[in-house]
Amino acid sequence: MAAKWVRMVTAQTPTNIAVIKYWGKRDETLILPINDSISVTLDPHHLCTTTTVAVSPSFDQDRMWLNGKEISLSGGRYQNCLREIRACASDVEDEEKGIKIAKKDWGSLHILIASYNNFPTAAGLASSAAGFACLVFALAKLMNLSEDHGKLSAIARQGSGSACRSLYGGFVKWNMGKNEDGTDSRAIQIVDEKHWDDLVIFIAVVSSRQKETSSTIGMHNSVETSMLLKYRAQEVVPKRILQMEEAIKNRDFPTLAHLTCADSNQFHAVCLDTYPPIFYMNDTSHRIISIVEKWNRTEGTPQVAYTFDAGPNAVLIARNRNAATLLLQRLLFYFPPGDGVDLNSFLIGDKSILEDAGLKDAKDLEALPPPPEIKDNVPAQRYRGDVSYFICTRPGRGPVLLSDESQALLNPETGLPK
Amino acid sequence: MAAKWVRMVTAQTPTNIAVIKYWGKRDETLILPINDSISVTLDPHHLCTTTTVAVSPSFDQDRMWLNGKEISLSGGRYQNCLREIRACASDVEDEEKGIKIAKKDWGSLHILIASYNNFPTAAGLASSAAGFACLVFALAKLMNLSEDHGKLSAIARQGSGSACRSLYGGFVKWNMGKNEDGTDSRAIQIVDEKHWDDLVIFIAVVSSRQKETSSTIGMHNSVETSMLLKYRAQEVVPKRILQMEEAIKNRDFPTLAHLTCADSNQFHAVCLDTYPPIFYMNDTSHRIISIVEKWNRTEGTPQVAYTFDAGPNAVLIARNRNAATLLLQRLLFYFPPGDGVDLNSFLIGDKSILEDAGLKDAKDLEALPPPPEIKDNVPAQRYRGDVSYFICTRPGRGPVLLSDESQALLNPETGLPK
Repeated sequence: MAAKWVRMVTAQTPTNIAVIKYWGKRDETLILPINDSISVTLDPHHLCTTTTVAVSPSFDQDRMWLNGKEISLSGGRYQNCLREIRACASDVEDEEKGIKIAKKDWGSLHILIASYNNFPTAAGLASSAAGFACLVFALAKLMNLSEDHGKLSAIARQGSGSACRSLYGGFVKWNMGKNEDGTDSRAIQIVDEKHWDDLVIFIAVVSSRQKETSSTIGMHNSVETSMLLKYRAQEVVPKRILQMEEAIKNRDFPTLAHLTCADSNQFHAVCLDTYPPIFYMNDTSHRIISIVEKWNRTEGTPQVAYTFDAGPNAVLIARNRNAATLLLQRLLFYFPPGDGVDLNSFLIGDKSILEDAGLKDAKDLEALPPPPEIKDNVPAQRYRGDVSYFICTRPGRGPVLLSDESQALLNPETGLPK
Repeated sequence: MAAKWVRMVTAQTPTNIAVIKYWGKRDETLILPINDSISVTLDPHHLCTTTTVAVSPSFDQDRMWLNGKEISLSGGRYQNCLREIRACASDVEDEEKGIKIAKKDWGSLHILIASYNNFPTAAGLASSAAGFACLVFALAKLMNLSEDHGKLSAIARQGSGSACRSLYGGFVKWNMGKNEDGTDSRAIQIVDEKHWDDLVIFIAVVSSRQKETSSTIGMHNSVETSMLLKYRAQEVVPKRILQMEEAIKNRDFPTLAHLTCADSNQFHAVCLDTYPPIFYMNDTSHRIISIVEKWNRTEGTPQVAYTFDAGPNAVLIARNRNAATLLLQRLLFYFPPGDGVDLNSFLIGDKSILEDAGLKDAKDLEALPPPPEIKDNVPAQRYRGDVSYFICTRPGRGPVLLSDESQALLNPETGLPK
């Protein structure tokens, strides 16, 4: 044990977007929700967290760096995850490196953690979901946990509720559970990411001048003051969960779209019914909804679903590549980039969709015709700069280990950030 | 009866603003609501409709002019009101003018109507409420109805639901009623306008680029699609109605303020829960709410209540003249007039409040300090031009007859608009 070794594990975990929303806790410490929720995991190529965890007898305290900056681990959420994971740790032996850790040693060994999001943080893109899922997954590998993903999911939940859903790819359901200790409040996979692989997902990162209410405070206030939330959780969501699971299994896009939009709207309705009221959507969010609703109505069957989390950003799920192309043309018509922003930084993620849409440069954007569903005599208004940028992505897989040590965020000798 | 006479009546009726909202009909033809509602009638000096109705054996059809422009009376709502009123008409005799109309004659006599709003129409200021109330009140006087205001209220309701509440001054309750024929769905006065006369009311007319959903279509869609509306109507509103009546009777401003704000927010929550969702409030509306909430919180007890109808305009109820002065300073700090708009046209209604607030001209506006409740280090943002203008008013009386013929909108000889 005295040898100067560092054991390190690096993992990558996707973020996820709820299509049936989680809003409201019945236990704020254990993070137990008042209803089930369902999410789609996003392709980690475009939106994920990479986390390296290291253990060494030479470390004298637990430390963590997020996007290169050291942050405190003293918060209850980190402490809960670390304690729960340590409690499940097993013996580890790596003969090659001369490492031997007994189960009982984990309580006294310290951990260093480095985490990095491949997308802008604080843009309201659920970075804490990917972050806690990745931390728990990486620690589980480091400590050789024999527990299945379900157990890991229940641990990640104690870091950030929605993190429990990022332990799986594809479509995922978080069962609220019934036990007081939360052991049955964990995620399960409904279908993997290959089951419905023609979906295309856009995220519109909306410029906002408003300071937003954190989702922790927001849902606390909703539980305390919204009379509609209780009804939603008890009467509305259970039915929608069953319908959504069916829709996903059957790849029934119209039902998925209808439920996704209606549930997003109802979540924001509950926020408005909270006292004092919470506004996460702004005029740009409203415009995106109106554009999608108008197009869907014109087509006679939904081409796109929209959903909004605790912020103004829109997540748009297109039924297939063709619909995604037509959607992108609409989005870029209404929300062209602000001055000096080039197309290459305005659409990130899967940029090949630009080619499908026949868009190569700023000139093509300016030449986009108004969508045919606009029949009004008034010329369509364009809202330049109201969307900061778009991300094009798709449903993706769950967490993976990165065995290539060059991808590690910590130095294999010192355990400190590279 | 063959003599060439014109009998004319002119009336003035205020508009009203709901503090417990009406949203959703159980009968769309009779206009029967799914819950009770409560409103405050506004001072007709600032917001009212004036209507002149005339009858003469020489008229060969019913006709109407609204704000000087002829409009069709063929719609069901006008027809229902006219039919109901005619059914209650009595004998009329005016010896001086040589007029004698028997009860049975009313079915064959035609009516000319001219109506005028003393506030901008289509600004979302409930002009139809004042309009139908005034039409019914004026016709009732013309036709010498012996029915009380309750019956008139039930007739006005068939023109526009909220019109039934404009038959009374002060605070008014619209009982939803139980009868299938709607005879018990009518307004009653809770207290008159003198009961609580220190309230001051501001209306912020908010600039909007959005085309709004009409309230008729909006409430139809809500009844059809919002799962939360049913719960609101059955479980939430009945309790609030009782609490609001008590608060009004006791002049309990904190309770009035809390219920008014919460009920406005819940109405807009239901609109969001409607499919497709309806957005009546915009970013400016949200900002006004945030400003009021922040100030109320800082003061420890509510100084101002806000409520929004089917549009972005804010109605703000200040607890007294002092609070109104402080509110006005805040409103004009955050929402100064756009370029070229002078203070005199930017605040209409009771302009004497400007003097109380120490504001004489544009220079005073620019010099307004940020409200003390702003403690952030970031300088407060001002939203120039986002409010088109403000109206300062107060609770007011119900309909009155205008006996001075110079105020009539129709020519006493011809019955045509002056």
